[in-house]
Amino acid sequence: MAISEFDLIARYFAAAGAQRTDVPLGIGDDGAVLACPAGCEVVAVTDTLVEGTHFLSGSSPASIGHRALAVNLSDVAAMGARPAWALLALTLPAADESWLAAFAQGFGALARRFGVALVGGDTTSGPLCITVQLLGLVERGRALRRSGGRAGDELFVSGTPGDAAAGLALERHRPATDTAETRFLRERFLYPEPRVALGEQLCGWASACIDLSDGLAGDLGKLAAASGCGATLEVDDLPLSAALRSMQGPEGAWRLALTGGDDYELLFAVPPARMAAMSAALPAGRWGYRRIGALCAEPGLHVTRGGGVIEFSHRGYEHFSG
Amino acid sequence: MAISEFDLIARYFAAAGAQRTDVPLGIGDDGAVLACPAGCEVVAVTDTLVEGTHFLSGSSPASIGHRALAVNLSDVAAMGARPAWALLALTLPAADESWLAAFAQGFGALARRFGVALVGGDTTSGPLCITVQLLGLVERGRALRRSGGRAGDELFVSGTPGDAAAGLALERHRPATDTAETRFLRERFLYPEPRVALGEQLCGWASACIDLSDGLAGDLGKLAAASGCGATLEVDDLPLSAALRSMQGPEGAWRLALTGGDDYELLFAVPPARMAAMSAALPAGRWGYRRIGALCAEPGLHVTRGGGVIEFSHRGYEHFSG
Repeated sequence: MAISEFDLIARYFAAAGAQRTDVPLGIGDDGAVLACPAGCEVVAVTDTLVEGTHFLSGSSPASIGHRALAVNLSDVAAMGARPAWALLALTLPAADESWLAAFAQGFGALARRFGVALVGGDTTSGPLCITVQLLGLVERGRALRRSGGRAGDELFVSGTPGDAAAGLALERHRPATDTAETRFLRERFLYPEPRVALGEQLCGWASACIDLSDGLAGDLGKLAAASGCGATLEVDDLPLSAALRSMQGPEGAWRLALTGGDDYELLFAVPPARMAAMSAALPAGRWGYRRIGALCAEPGLHVTRGGGVIEFSHRGYEHFSG
Repeated sequence: MAISEFDLIARYFAAAGAQRTDVPLGIGDDGAVLACPAGCEVVAVTDTLVEGTHFLSGSSPASIGHRALAVNLSDVAAMGARPAWALLALTLPAADESWLAAFAQGFGALARRFGVALVGGDTTSGPLCITVQLLGLVERGRALRRSGGRAGDELFVSGTPGDAAAGLALERHRPATDTAETRFLRERFLYPEPRVALGEQLCGWASACIDLSDGLAGDLGKLAAASGCGATLEVDDLPLSAALRSMQGPEGAWRLALTGGDDYELLFAVPPARMAAMSAALPAGRWGYRRIGALCAEPGLHVTRGGGVIEFSHRGYEHFSG
């Protein structure tokens, strides 16, 4: 690699993130020094994007930079924390300056929007791979967990799941003409919007929360299992975008909403006793979430459509059984 | 990858690190929750190891696991901090269970020895690449920096630099017979010992500190430049191991000590006024460090041998000029 590690970091990333007053020492030493405010706990997450696994070869570097941070912001949001400080470990086959500039722009714009300081990192030579570690802050004892749900809690999801999976399919097999709908879906994959403000607001209301990365059905299964419950889910209640329904048809749309990955929406449970107050404090219309089911005592995922039970597997096969 | 991410983490890493009481929530949720004690700051570091760049293809997985954590422990040590919590991002071409078990053993043994809890991570499919993020704790305002040195401060190095580079050369070109000396040098590359206790003890004594990863001469140049100084270094004062001198000869040994990488020793500066008290508190013999030079006002690295100036470049060429 022609440009040294130091030069790389200094040139493209030194000013990429937000400026924060709680960073006594940032990029450029052996480590960063961070000041955690009294009464807060630190939430730590990490996620890796690998070329060919998490994004297509030749993807827009601005999108890769955005997504590398967004997937971590989504994890911090699912914990109900405020994002604060990021470390970026970047492995590159070559120091392509225009690629780096676009990557840093995509990463930096999102970091500044969410007040995240880039406080350190490492650049190495090798196959393209990006690991971000993100630290957030949450009031002591208030972090959301997957495990706090109880049978009877109502289930909600933000946004319109399935769009990102449809967008990825469009990135893979570009249609001859790009419409407003295909552009919308591709953007939903390339530039996911982490639900950071919603996650913070859910502290005190939600009993359990998880972010959607591997598909709604699978991630709901994880939340329910961690909470020692099962879950019911009504297909007709899924919030589906007009673009997704138009592209996939009604049948394909809900299947993709349940099984498609890369949504980075929040799925959360709320005890019935808190419902009225939460609806008043966080109106569903303004905050963009919708009820899709409930936790139940019986283990497993119980999917209904128009009230009738359907047998659903992650592979997308279904058999009507009631 | 046949085994799911969740299974991988659960099976090999859940119990790999130390148990700590300051981890309200560890592996298994969207993020970890960490309790920073009052009066402390958090030190955050990250380093990546890539197959073929930082270790040879086919290297012992136990060594890779050890080194992935050790290089980060060394950065935390250079900041004078106590290591506390680690995140592990592991990209693997395949889920080879015996490889994973050995990697987790190498990583876990070092983590437990230094009281590091493994609190989260991510496993992905792709070319072999390991990124560790390590968080440490240091009393507020006490972290060591590269930039605190002043002209006149004396320079010290721990251990015997150059051994790891010689060990790597032996790993590349295995000699027909392995001797006690070749084994010693190979171990110094495969299982570096981060100077965590020394780093912590140096708070309050050292004016500046850096860990050796890219070679003593280059890393000294970084410390001196960050401190707005130059540095003098006497080749005859370099602490060289008997094994290194035996393998490389006296000439080759000091060259490798100056230019070889992967030492993970500490290089630090101490103001003359603190020397007597530091020597009493941290006897050099017991703590394994040695004086090799001093910071000076004139920029650049000024290398002497037996008092005579030698012209030294990182490429290992020298021309006697005095």
